[in-house]
Amino acid sequence: MNFVVFSNGILLLGMSFIMAVLAAIYPATREAFLLSALVAGLFGGLVSLAVSHRVTDFRRLHTFLLTGSIWITGATAGALPLWLWQLSPTDAFFEAMSGITTTGSTVMSGLDTTAPGILLWRGILQWLGGIGFIVTGIAFLPILRVGGMQLFRTESSERGEKEMTSAARFAGATVWIYVALTILCTAVYTAGGMTVFDAVAHALTTVSTGGYSTSDASFGHFDSAFLQWSGTLFMIAGALPFAWYIKGLNRRVFRSEQVRSILVFFVVTIAIVTTWRVVTVQTPQLETLRLVAFNVVSVVTTTGYATTDYTTWGPFAVVVFFALTAVGGCTGSTAGGAKMMRWIILFRVIRIQLRMVHSPSAVFRVRYEGRAVDTDGLSGVMAFFVFYAITVGLLSVALGLYGLDLETSISGALTAVANVGPGVGDTIGPAGNFATLPDGAKLLLCFGMYVGRLEMLTVYVVLTATFWREIS
Amino acid sequence: MNFVVFSNGILLLGMSFIMAVLAAIYPATREAFLLSALVAGLFGGLVSLAVSHRVTDFRRLHTFLLTGSIWITGATAGALPLWLWQLSPTDAFFEAMSGITTTGSTVMSGLDTTAPGILLWRGILQWLGGIGFIVTGIAFLPILRVGGMQLFRTESSERGEKEMTSAARFAGATVWIYVALTILCTAVYTAGGMTVFDAVAHALTTVSTGGYSTSDASFGHFDSAFLQWSGTLFMIAGALPFAWYIKGLNRRVFRSEQVRSILVFFVVTIAIVTTWRVVTVQTPQLETLRLVAFNVVSVVTTTGYATTDYTTWGPFAVVVFFALTAVGGCTGSTAGGAKMMRWIILFRVIRIQLRMVHSPSAVFRVRYEGRAVDTDGLSGVMAFFVFYAITVGLLSVALGLYGLDLETSISGALTAVANVGPGVGDTIGPAGNFATLPDGAKLLLCFGMYVGRLEMLTVYVVLTATFWREIS
Repeated sequence: MNFVVFSNGILLLGMSFIMAVLAAIYPATREAFLLSALVAGLFGGLVSLAVSHRVTDFRRLHTFLLTGSIWITGATAGALPLWLWQLSPTDAFFEAMSGITTTGSTVMSGLDTTAPGILLWRGILQWLGGIGFIVTGIAFLPILRVGGMQLFRTESSERGEKEMTSAARFAGATVWIYVALTILCTAVYTAGGMTVFDAVAHALTTVSTGGYSTSDASFGHFDSAFLQWSGTLFMIAGALPFAWYIKGLNRRVFRSEQVRSILVFFVVTIAIVTTWRVVTVQTPQLETLRLVAFNVVSVVTTTGYATTDYTTWGPFAVVVFFALTAVGGCTGSTAGGAKMMRWIILFRVIRIQLRMVHSPSAVFRVRYEGRAVDTDGLSGVMAFFVFYAITVGLLSVALGLYGLDLETSISGALTAVANVGPGVGDTIGPAGNFATLPDGAKLLLCFGMYVGRLEMLTVYVVLTATFWREIS
Repeated sequence: MNFVVFSNGILLLGMSFIMAVLAAIYPATREAFLLSALVAGLFGGLVSLAVSHRVTDFRRLHTFLLTGSIWITGATAGALPLWLWQLSPTDAFFEAMSGITTTGSTVMSGLDTTAPGILLWRGILQWLGGIGFIVTGIAFLPILRVGGMQLFRTESSERGEKEMTSAARFAGATVWIYVALTILCTAVYTAGGMTVFDAVAHALTTVSTGGYSTSDASFGHFDSAFLQWSGTLFMIAGALPFAWYIKGLNRRVFRSEQVRSILVFFVVTIAIVTTWRVVTVQTPQLETLRLVAFNVVSVVTTTGYATTDYTTWGPFAVVVFFALTAVGGCTGSTAGGAKMMRWIILFRVIRIQLRMVHSPSAVFRVRYEGRAVDTDGLSGVMAFFVFYAITVGLLSVALGLYGLDLETSISGALTAVANVGPGVGDTIGPAGNFATLPDGAKLLLCFGMYVGRLEMLTVYVVLTATFWREIS
């Protein structure tokens, strides 16, 4: 278990370093960040030193503890400066968990006048969470055989030494692409008229599909067609599989079923909603297209920015955006939700079920990205949807206990588990705020964001008795 | 295809006979029923005569058309007298479809003063739909391999002649148990103080888990602890597997995982909700227990009676009753919804997924009622949940297009597909009524009730091009 503890210690040291830098730059929040840096650094340093003498005891089951603990450590350390600054402990933890899981639900308001150090810290949390999740998705989930991610096993996570090296190189390349995308996004935002600070803060939360903004009006604060279309494109960029970029750079395979599906899905959904708006309310076509495209992309990529309160568009829009919350981006990206890969496989299983009924003797095979999916992968994908539905269902019931109405309970549970950000309804809709929820409900949503980010099974396995019997 | 047409003709003749009897008994609605009896009888007679010369062309694929067409014919013929009486065509079709699918959503109000012929006809539609579904569940769905129902194949639907005879005897026994339960229920209701008319009308809709009442206050009209507890018991009786009764009568197996599970589920749910009510609102314990038991059982058995407007109990109750709508009774009963059998298998699949992750090499088997479930049955069950979720999802989006709010859209779609009856929210909640919905939304809900009753796949298969290529 030493390796797990050591990794958490290193994470704390890294976060402590960033806090120290922020303390140095921004005088207004210096005390909060300096104290947090000290606590995180001291604790991280002590812990990693204490176990550093034998960190080679890593076993397969420890992967669950590693992924499970790293997000909690990140959220706790992330909450420190927010709490020392002025938030209540629950609010600080909610905000940090929402950040590190790239959800983007916020309890803060008055963002336009909030200290820049705090705003940047929220962006950095999302950015770290984003790259953390890509690496988890590429390196850990396939080993853990969670949610059908074993499909990506041969690509990057075989156990031979040669493959380990290639996996490490692969992870390295991913980080560089992530950094490059962030810099490019910052440059484009600056070119579009944002201040450098706003550009950095938004690039950090765009590429990570996080969705924290520096304004209560979210991305809608920037009333520029260029900026909103740029935001749309970079949100999509963050939700595409990073392996696809690497292959693209290596001039190898440019075709990807996931990429094709998500693009087709965007075109169809945006076309339907735009047509509906233009026909029923006679809004100007181009502006409507931009509004619809931005907000649809924002919800599907699980970013959670908004440029308008689309829930005022009437019941159809509410139902559509509620449904879009469940979709999600691509695997191996920063996006949350059920993800395209699983929807593709799900729809192929459905097609086969329909065929099987009247050709009982025929043998059908589900194929994905040109390869046959084995039973193990299939049941992983199906189990994901089951866990997804049950988690959202139970979480809704629990939120109901805290007096939240049905709309807020269900959409709150869904937006948390899918790591999207805003829900629908007056309280937690795109124009709303999570601040008014009872503390218990906030903690439940923290749990939802956490299990959603780790694709549920990773957490639930650790909660079984068998796990602890086997690991000891 | 002649056999399919012939069966529909026979159904029309049977319904025509019942209409004629109702015309003879009730003068107030004589004209409507007489005319309907004539039309249905004439049409049914002509059609069955036309094809009666060769009805032995039945093939396996025809089963889909048989089950698919019989419910539409039943709903159409059922709507005739309602339309001739005074309902609009859409309302009449909605009311009849809701009846024959034992859903119980109603567009009618002023029931307390409605002509008895109409009230009895609504009850009879549900009663016919109930026994129709039991026979479908026992005889057809296993052959169609729909939703994991192939698990029940060896019991009653093997193709050998001996098994056919035993299946016919089995179906016969089921009908007798159904009739006996209805008579018993009528007797108990009469003993409890209902008029004979009310007792018959409610027995018809209790045992069939349909839920139509003769009063706008639903079962709450009868302010009697004895009647409400009797209703609770007979709703449960209608939602238990009828095969279990037969086995019980034959003094064979009395143990059934489904029966045990649904009873445990009732006890736990009722205990939680009752405790919550008693503790938070200090309501009298026994009365609360009775109210909670009746309404929980009503929703889970997909009956849809109400003795109170539980949606006024606050958000927690709304969320719980919304969730209960998705549960459903037992297979081989009159109940709709996902059904206990599938939940049991689903939870075993989940347990295995959790185990498999940390014991990758071990082989796990799902068992149900003491037998191993094969891959075919498993994927049938999983596919059911997928179709269930997608049907409710798409239906919600479509309802949103008609301007229904999110709560009404989702709970309306769910209550229709699960054949429960009332939804939640002001419009279609237990104290509400479906009359105010736009016609398009009513027709969508008709489709939902129809595909829900036929466990979805049965309908969707017929909608594929492959089906028609193969059947021709």
